[in-house]
Amino acid sequence: MKLRTIGELRLLEEIRKRFNLSLPQKGGDVIVGIGDDAAVFSCPGDKILVTTDMMTEGVHFNLDYTSPYQLGFKLVSVNASDIYAMGGSPVFIFLNTAMMGDTDEEFFRDFFNGISSALSIYGLRLLGGDISSVLKEMSFSATIVGAVERFVTRAGAKPGDKIYITGTLGDSSCGLEILKRLIRADKEIIKRHDFLEKDFPGNTKTRLKVIVNSEHKELDFRLAEPLIKRHLMPVVQHPGHFADKATSMIDVSDGLFIDLIRVCDDSNVGAKIYLSKIPISNQVREIARILGLDPFRLAISGGEDYELLFTLPPEIKGIKIDKDTPSGFIDTLNSGSRAVTCIGEITPNERIVIDSDGSASTLKGEGYQHFDFLQ
Amino acid sequence: MKLRTIGELRLLEEIRKRFNLSLPQKGGDVIVGIGDDAAVFSCPGDKILVTTDMMTEGVHFNLDYTSPYQLGFKLVSVNASDIYAMGGSPVFIFLNTAMMGDTDEEFFRDFFNGISSALSIYGLRLLGGDISSVLKEMSFSATIVGAVERFVTRAGAKPGDKIYITGTLGDSSCGLEILKRLIRADKEIIKRHDFLEKDFPGNTKTRLKVIVNSEHKELDFRLAEPLIKRHLMPVVQHPGHFADKATSMIDVSDGLFIDLIRVCDDSNVGAKIYLSKIPISNQVREIARILGLDPFRLAISGGEDYELLFTLPPEIKGIKIDKDTPSGFIDTLNSGSRAVTCIGEITPNERIVIDSDGSASTLKGEGYQHFDFLQ
Repeated sequence: MKLRTIGELRLLEEIRKRFNLSLPQKGGDVIVGIGDDAAVFSCPGDKILVTTDMMTEGVHFNLDYTSPYQLGFKLVSVNASDIYAMGGSPVFIFLNTAMMGDTDEEFFRDFFNGISSALSIYGLRLLGGDISSVLKEMSFSATIVGAVERFVTRAGAKPGDKIYITGTLGDSSCGLEILKRLIRADKEIIKRHDFLEKDFPGNTKTRLKVIVNSEHKELDFRLAEPLIKRHLMPVVQHPGHFADKATSMIDVSDGLFIDLIRVCDDSNVGAKIYLSKIPISNQVREIARILGLDPFRLAISGGEDYELLFTLPPEIKGIKIDKDTPSGFIDTLNSGSRAVTCIGEITPNERIVIDSDGSASTLKGEGYQHFDFLQ
Repeated sequence: MKLRTIGELRLLEEIRKRFNLSLPQKGGDVIVGIGDDAAVFSCPGDKILVTTDMMTEGVHFNLDYTSPYQLGFKLVSVNASDIYAMGGSPVFIFLNTAMMGDTDEEFFRDFFNGISSALSIYGLRLLGGDISSVLKEMSFSATIVGAVERFVTRAGAKPGDKIYITGTLGDSSCGLEILKRLIRADKEIIKRHDFLEKDFPGNTKTRLKVIVNSEHKELDFRLAEPLIKRHLMPVVQHPGHFADKATSMIDVSDGLFIDLIRVCDDSNVGAKIYLSKIPISNQVREIARILGLDPFRLAISGGEDYELLFTLPPEIKGIKIDKDTPSGFIDTLNSGSRAVTCIGEITPNERIVIDSDGSASTLKGEGYQHFDFLQ
């Protein structure tokens, strides 16, 4: 059935029944949930965090290779990422959805299935929003309210601080490059894939077919899957112990360099980055080679990795970092352990990148900018 | 200059500089404003209200007869209205904007000028958001955080309560009907009109030209202007004393009957409405006649009036209501005095409309539903 046949009121009623059930959430008591003019809740702490982000069709997502489930999931994740990047915990979420009148109800429900999966992972509760229509291009936004005790801004980095990044970079943009090149049949397979369930379709699917410069090539599904997942359904994490010690923090959403420069600008400092230390997964190296892409370019300007970039004073007690290698493993609140890599240090003014041959160049804000991509 | 030439980062920087100045706001201390991953603020009270609403091109607004200034203003008003409808006060706002790459910078700035005008009126402070791009259709959303002591939901109406409405109904939809029929030159004049400044263009413009059933007709500008203003730049109000006494409340955004039924459903009651008591302005009566429209239809199903529908127990002390006539004037917190009209009463179950000839019919949910309009 098409959404225009169901109508806004019945859709709202369905969402209200589904999500006004008590879901796990970490703070704040709900007094009025979905369905009134506004939600009412008690403060989840002394200090409140609020962030909002939108996703528009053709710019943030492409329905040729993205399912509504994946889309709903990602919408929650990208907003949760901003709360984590402040050292906070997401508590409540509000959604705005604009779909077309001829959108199928299955699309609508799958979208909210994806939302629902993400809410469970982040312990979030849906408290309201707007179900609207649009003529041609879908548009979604979410607002998350979070709680925080010690928050970390972009503005506290000091000269001498070490610069760390969680996980690996370039995975998401490499995943996107795979998706763009997939043959249609494999795009359809990916759209049916719930990346949270490990068994499908890995146990039957072993290769993905892509077209690179008009040539058909094959990718090992086990290599490609984590990269595609990072792009379509990123799962973001609380910074854990780092939130107590970090002098500055940002999530890498637009690209490592552009986001690092935001930290430098707001902290009024510079940075020296060692290109060779930037963590790049073996999957990205291998697949970039097949696709004819530069893995470093993906890592420094690809964006959407939603890893955390943070700075720590050079001597920190209580956090174990293996100083002999650029990376170490540190306990986090949620996830047991997590890789972090030191990629450079904060300087008083100069902003430079040291290449693997030791040569220095200026750190420039390469990464995704809205509008810029149209130039 | 086009937005794609300016780029997201410079636009963000402009907004940050402009709005991170201290603006009047009624509660909550801002700890981190625009420009970080999330805003941080102290709770503006024990209880927090949050609402969010979106506006999409071609569905909620038509740029043929709406300026970006008017659009920005309305986006704030429709969200503030939801906070007022709970008896609360708006404090902080977050915005998501998606414009095209070839949108002019004047459009962007005028939009934020409209936002700015509305923030001043409501004592709101802009704390964050997302500046995004879109391929073809603009899309905007706002989230308002409000403070409240005694909140009023849709769920507290009791049999015997009287049903009141502030102001008059049908003005906004009558304004929209005028706008749709304006000749192009007059649409352009309306787009240049800041309805907050009383002198322009009323002192030079005395007639508006419309096309009704292929015939040219003229409307008195003084009659048409307040109706057009109600549609393009509604100014919404705190319910004042009513918030302390009302058993239920909702803002009339989708249409009187559809919104009244929401109150009935959530309160588990019925309602009896007297059609003849529904307040309709002389301007609506006069202009509806010229346009060949039914003023009652505009009033009960037109929507977007953003008046407050609320219920009061039959005997209320401390609020002066002239019981001899269906309407009276009551002091409010913000605006000195305000018309309210009793249009009926809450019943245990039955939902009926009494026509002016005394005949009864079933109260049905006539009004705006998303997707429904495409049927």
